[in-house]
Amino acid sequence: MTHSVLVTGAHGFLGRYVARHFARNGWLVTGMGHGTWSESEFREWGLSFWHNAPVELDALVTYGGEPDVIVHCAGSGSVSFSLVHPREDFLRTVSSTSAVLEYVRKYSPMTRVAYPSSAAVYGNAEQLPIKESQPLKPASPYGLHKRMAEQLCLAHAAHFGLKLGVVRFFSIYGEHLKKQLLWDACNKLSQGEHSFFGSGGEVRDWLHAEDAATLLAASALHADASCPIVNGGSGEGVAVREILAELFDEFGVSSGPEFSDAPRAGDPRDYQADISCAAQWGWAPLIGWRQGVRRYVRWFRENLR
Amino acid sequence: MTHSVLVTGAHGFLGRYVARHFARNGWLVTGMGHGTWSESEFREWGLSFWHNAPVELDALVTYGGEPDVIVHCAGSGSVSFSLVHPREDFLRTVSSTSAVLEYVRKYSPMTRVAYPSSAAVYGNAEQLPIKESQPLKPASPYGLHKRMAEQLCLAHAAHFGLKLGVVRFFSIYGEHLKKQLLWDACNKLSQGEHSFFGSGGEVRDWLHAEDAATLLAASALHADASCPIVNGGSGEGVAVREILAELFDEFGVSSGPEFSDAPRAGDPRDYQADISCAAQWGWAPLIGWRQGVRRYVRWFRENLR
Repeated sequence: MTHSVLVTGAHGFLGRYVARHFARNGWLVTGMGHGTWSESEFREWGLSFWHNAPVELDALVTYGGEPDVIVHCAGSGSVSFSLVHPREDFLRTVSSTSAVLEYVRKYSPMTRVAYPSSAAVYGNAEQLPIKESQPLKPASPYGLHKRMAEQLCLAHAAHFGLKLGVVRFFSIYGEHLKKQLLWDACNKLSQGEHSFFGSGGEVRDWLHAEDAATLLAASALHADASCPIVNGGSGEGVAVREILAELFDEFGVSSGPEFSDAPRAGDPRDYQADISCAAQWGWAPLIGWRQGVRRYVRWFRENLR
Repeated sequence: MTHSVLVTGAHGFLGRYVARHFARNGWLVTGMGHGTWSESEFREWGLSFWHNAPVELDALVTYGGEPDVIVHCAGSGSVSFSLVHPREDFLRTVSSTSAVLEYVRKYSPMTRVAYPSSAAVYGNAEQLPIKESQPLKPASPYGLHKRMAEQLCLAHAAHFGLKLGVVRFFSIYGEHLKKQLLWDACNKLSQGEHSFFGSGGEVRDWLHAEDAATLLAASALHADASCPIVNGGSGEGVAVREILAELFDEFGVSSGPEFSDAPRAGDPRDYQADISCAAQWGWAPLIGWRQGVRRYVRWFRENLR
C-alpha cells in the first residue's frame, strides 16, 4: 500500500526537499501552498499533485485527502521580515498552523503531523550546545510566532490526542536556497565584492536540507500525543568566517572575506544544537558542512552565472 | 479635552462595565464587536457609539478613531468552549489581539492598550497565592490562547515600543453575567434544585466587574513599552461552598447546597491571586465577595424571575 503525504509550502525551499525525500521512498506526495510552477517542475521534486492555494481550513478540506502524514512547511522564514510585517508573519506561521491542526482534528485525526520550527524560539542562547529543555526567550516576532505554533501543536496533542512532532531547525541551507549567507556570498563573489555584515565570528549550526528532510520524516514516524520536540542541526558550531573561507576556496578566490562588525537586529549571536534527542531515533546528518558548501557553490556556478 | 477610549467586545459582560467606568469618568466611549443592541441600551452603558463589526484590521481602521486608550475585551471566555472549538477560540482571542496590535502599530502608535487576560494562563497552581512570576502552564486551549495573546502584547511592546498593559483576571462576576456559578445557582434555586458540580471545596478568587474595570483603567494608565502584567483578583480565596452559602442565604433558602464531587475537565482546582503588583498602583477592590453575591442575587430576583 502506498503511503501518502501532504507537504504544505512545497514550493518553498525546505518543502521541496521534503517532497523529494518522501517521493524517493515511494510515497505519494501532494503539495499545497503559494507558488506557481509547471507540472514538469513540481514532478521533478517528487510531487504528484500541486494545489496553488492558501493553507487555510477550506483549502485543506478540499485538497488534504486525509494523508498518512502532513509536513507543514508553509510559513514565514525571515527574522527581518517579521520585524517589519509582524501581522503577516503571524498569519503565515501561527494562523496556518492553527488551520492545519483544525483540519487534522476534525477531518483526519489519524494523520501524523511533523512541524519544522526554528532555533529562533530559544533567543540568545545561555549556553552551548543548546538543549531542547533550555528556557525559551524568542528575540523576534519570527521566533515568537514559531514558538506559538509549537504551543498549538503541544496543546492539540495533549487535549485531542493528535500525533504530532516538532523539529527546531538551526541554519538550513542547500542548493536552490536563494537567500541568506551562501546565496549572498556567491552573488557578491560573482560581482567581485568581498565584504559582509557582522564580525565573522558568529557561530551557526548548519544542516543541509536533505538532512533536514530525513529528520522531518523521522519526526513524522515518531509523532504521537506527547508531541516530541527535537533539535535539528549538525551538532557542530561553525563560524561564518569558516563557512566563507570554504566558499571562497571553492570559488577559487584567494583573498579572505571582510566583515563590517555590525550585527543585525533580532539575530541571536551564537547557535549550536545539542542533537542527542534526534540521535536517539537513529537519525544523523550525512552531509558535512564543507561538502555542503562546495555542493552549493557548484550548483550556483552551474545554474546561475 | 475629552479623552477617548475604544472598548472592543463592549457588548459582552466585562466590556459593558469597562465602558461604563470610563464614561462615568468623562471619557468618550466607542464600542465595537459582535452584538446587536439599541442606542438606548448601549447609551445606558456609557457608549456614545457602537459598531457591530468583527474585531479585524479593516473594521479597526474604519471605526478605531485613534483613541487615547483601547481596552481589548473582545475574545473567548470559556474553558469548556475552547475544548470543543479550539480553532474558534484561537480566532476570537489570539487573532483578534493580533489585529488590535497591528492597528495600533500601524495607525495609532500613541494609543495605550489594556488587555484583560486570565488566570487560566497559570494552569494548576503550584502554590497559593499566585504571583505573576509563577511558571505558566495553561491547562486548556482557552488558557493557552490567553497566554499567546499576552505574548503578542509583550512582543509588540518590546519590538515596536507600543504602550501596553495586561491584567490576569481571576473569577470576574457581577450583575448581568448570565453564565457561570452565580447564574447557574440562581437559576437552580429558582427551580428548587440544590445540587452542583464539584466538591464545593474549589477555591476561587472573586472580583466584581466594577473592580475589574477600575483595574483595567489603571493598567491603561500604567501601560508602557515594558508591558506590565498584573494579577486581577481580590487577593482572597473563597471556596465555592462559601459563595453558595451566602447566595442561598440571600435567596432565603435554608438548606445548604449539595455537590456531585466531579471536577470539570480543564479546570484547575484552586485559585487565589497575589495582588501586590496592582496594589503598588494604588488600586484596591472595593466590593467584597459577600456584598457582591448579595447584589447579584438581588439583581437576579428583580430582573429575571
